Amino acid sequence: MLTNTLPRYEILDEAALQELERGWRRIVSDLGIEFLHDDALAYLRDAGQQVDGQLVRFDPDWILEQAAKAPPEFTLQARNPERTVQIGGDNMVFSAVYGCPFVREGLERRTATYADFKNLVRLAQAFPELDSPGGTICEPDDVPLDSRHLDMVYALLTLSDKPFMGSVTSAENAKDSIAMAEMVFGADSIEETPAMISLINVNSPLRYDDRMLGALIEYAKRNQATIVTPFLLMGAMSPVSVPATLAQQVAEALAGVALVQTIRPGAPVVFGSFLSNTDMQSGSPSFGTPESAVGLLCTGQIARHYNLPFRSGGALTSSQVVDAQAGYESMMTMWPTFLAGTNFVMHAAGWLESALVSCYEKFVTDVELLRMLYHVFEPLQINEETLAYSAHQEVGQGGHFLGAVHTLERFRDCFYRPLVSSTENYERWSRNGGNDTAARASGIWHKTLAEYEEPAMEDDLKSELKAYVDRRRTELGD
Amino acid sequence: MLTNTLPRYEILDEAALQELERGWRRIVSDLGIEFLHDDALAYLRDAGQQVDGQLVRFDPDWILEQAAKAPPEFTLQARNPERTVQIGGDNMVFSAVYGCPFVREGLERRTATYADFKNLVRLAQAFPELDSPGGTICEPDDVPLDSRHLDMVYALLTLSDKPFMGSVTSAENAKDSIAMAEMVFGADSIEETPAMISLINVNSPLRYDDRMLGALIEYAKRNQATIVTPFLLMGAMSPVSVPATLAQQVAEALAGVALVQTIRPGAPVVFGSFLSNTDMQSGSPSFGTPESAVGLLCTGQIARHYNLPFRSGGALTSSQVVDAQAGYESMMTMWPTFLAGTNFVMHAAGWLESALVSCYEKFVTDVELLRMLYHVFEPLQINEETLAYSAHQEVGQGGHFLGAVHTLERFRDCFYRPLVSSTENYERWSRNGGNDTAARASGIWHKTLAEYEEPAMEDDLKSELKAYVDRRRTELGD
Repeated sequence: MLTNTLPRYEILDEAALQELERGWRRIVSDLGIEFLHDDALAYLRDAGQQVDGQLVRFDPDWILEQAAKAPPEFTLQARNPERTVQIGGDNMVFSAVYGCPFVREGLERRTATYADFKNLVRLAQAFPELDSPGGTICEPDDVPLDSRHLDMVYALLTLSDKPFMGSVTSAENAKDSIAMAEMVFGADSIEETPAMISLINVNSPLRYDDRMLGALIEYAKRNQATIVTPFLLMGAMSPVSVPATLAQQVAEALAGVALVQTIRPGAPVVFGSFLSNTDMQSGSPSFGTPESAVGLLCTGQIARHYNLPFRSGGALTSSQVVDAQAGYESMMTMWPTFLAGTNFVMHAAGWLESALVSCYEKFVTDVELLRMLYHVFEPLQINEETLAYSAHQEVGQGGHFLGAVHTLERFRDCFYRPLVSSTENYERWSRNGGNDTAARASGIWHKTLAEYEEPAMEDDLKSELKAYVDRRRTELGD
Repeated sequence: MLTNTLPRYEILDEAALQELERGWRRIVSDLGIEFLHDDALAYLRDAGQQVDGQLVRFDPDWILEQAAKAPPEFTLQARNPERTVQIGGDNMVFSAVYGCPFVREGLERRTATYADFKNLVRLAQAFPELDSPGGTICEPDDVPLDSRHLDMVYALLTLSDKPFMGSVTSAENAKDSIAMAEMVFGADSIEETPAMISLINVNSPLRYDDRMLGALIEYAKRNQATIVTPFLLMGAMSPVSVPATLAQQVAEALAGVALVQTIRPGAPVVFGSFLSNTDMQSGSPSFGTPESAVGLLCTGQIARHYNLPFRSGGALTSSQVVDAQAGYESMMTMWPTFLAGTNFVMHAAGWLESALVSCYEKFVTDVELLRMLYHVFEPLQINEETLAYSAHQEVGQGGHFLGAVHTLERFRDCFYRPLVSSTENYERWSRNGGNDTAARASGIWHKTLAEYEEPAMEDDLKSELKAYVDRRRTELGD
């Protein structure tokens, strides 16, 4: 977790914020949002909102009153208390890639398996720059669909002791996630301090589907954190305009936040953003774009305006391989992620090919980006000691600082030390195989996995979790 | 040229600026700076500074008085008036890579030739994102050393009509650059509005060498712009501390700025920064580092503090090839370059391998970064039109915006269109050859060169320039 005390980079003025306010208000009050779940409709109807079939038209002021009940900052507990994090304020929490059906390992691109899922969770556990493995770090295709969520939660709970994300594919799956977390943390403990943060995507435009709502309701009831995220690829799920998309994002996100607060006032909930654009030539989604960078900076400012923690960012790219595009597009999103002080960052490592692929090598290069940016966003201490006048006195004019006392005392940790980047001169680099970044990253993740140590868990607890998985799998007919 | 009206990202508070002020003042007054050129020493002695051999101890207040005479903003004229630029204020001007002895073309790395020099100037002319080819876009090894500057200036003046950088390798070479510019622009014209901006590196720490001083004096006398740049790789030319290096940078740069103003009050001069660090494991220079990003943000703030235009940034990397590292390191410098509102950006395209290599493919990927960042730093217009409420009304809940009237009216130019980045799906990308970014960039620069059109120049003028080159080459004995 990074506490980012550097300034936020804000590009909207007061007039712009007021225009956006006007924009989202008429969307929720005049157009309304569909909720494809009876309980959700009942909550909203009981709270006085205008429900017409599955369409809900809101009083925007009521939405803001509800949103004001959400905590601006909350604790998300980890199995290992040292890895417990704070969501909100100046804190930035980073989790791995989420939701990819494929993996890439070196030159091979294949359907993701449960073995991949476990390996990627192990990598997320091993790298300290990641605060959480996230949840669906890849979609393991070789375990049965209906009970897959159990396998995933089991791996997340046993192979990592960092906070994790629960299943959101149905109310039942959310209940399973909660039940398993209760075994590990205790029911009272998670009731008091959430142990899960789960991703509720809006089926944009202006629709919440039944599965996500089912999960949202279960998590809200049990005080588990949710990230309510409009899923916005401009040109597909929103207009081809950043301002219009921001207005829609506020409308959709705040409506979900208000629903959570209606179910359980004070329940932790995060203003989510997943905002990029369609490539209008190919119709393909496009990531690491200038528009998404601008959207991200604005989203941070908007979420702070409503005093809510927010989620955005990640090492996003459309590139098919770990090449220059993968590098610069990831940075195109990660720089504004840090500049905006994003509270919860999904997809911070491993994302490739517009999130179709969880990539082992990309995981490593993304960890390098995190390490570098952690370093940039550390406040600079300017004082007599760091001015190092004695070094100038020692070296004088035309000299060299390599042998200075000041240097010798500090050379080990005076600068950022890269993980995968190379500064080798050409001759040495060539002698060592002439490996590009992706090839070097391959060596690093293999070594990291080989050195991985599974965090301790009592045998009884592990058996109990395993028995739950087995029992539920049978009940689910897999 | 970009007029960057977005906010500057500033990370130093008033106390930090005051500490730095204290830092550079004692360097110039107590330690002093060496000037290895008699005329420079005479100028400074006559202005009342304390000269002891080649060492000059300064009155810091005198330095600030001189620096205050430099214009905060000035015009740099181009052969084509449409390409004339403003240096300073909110303006950002981008020039190509400078000073590399090698080139890389695809898989081949070789000593740079004059043919490469001309090709790279043509690329800089062809891409509108570059405001200037710069100067020594590579070091052409196949033309004679003593007269090489003539060949370079000839190519810069004939193959491009954008502003250029003059030779700085000696006073004589600077005079040749001025003489050739006079043929093209007229002596009175360049006297009134500079037609060259030339790079004066400090031989850091705390020393100006005779060749650079010779060139600085010639350019200052003739009102041609210079960029006075401390050359600072922390651990080699400065202490292993960003604050100490910033203090040294101010000391060295302002001393040079003061010298320029002593020679000719009001002459255009730019506060230069070239600040990165040594890799303390290998002893190699390291570029695209977190420390250099922090240094860049601070430099912008400091230069504004002294009301001087400043130079920094570029698409810097230590990578040996156009891979992920080349992509993310270039962004690690280009994001702060834009955030700081850098007025003159050298090395904005083509830099590879710690500036040992001018790379054709990197040139193209760097132009992509420039295009993307231009787009990010365009102010967002939030108003009734961009809120596009009619699109929301048309599409409603659960629909798709691809076919909306609002989309159809705007799909051609609603989003950034990439130059080299690919959003192709995996199958299509594979069918098309499975080319990575570098391979696609190769196709783009070949096509750009093939379509290049030499900007018009009168035959007489071209002959006159050629005759000057031939005559001077003979005089120089090459």
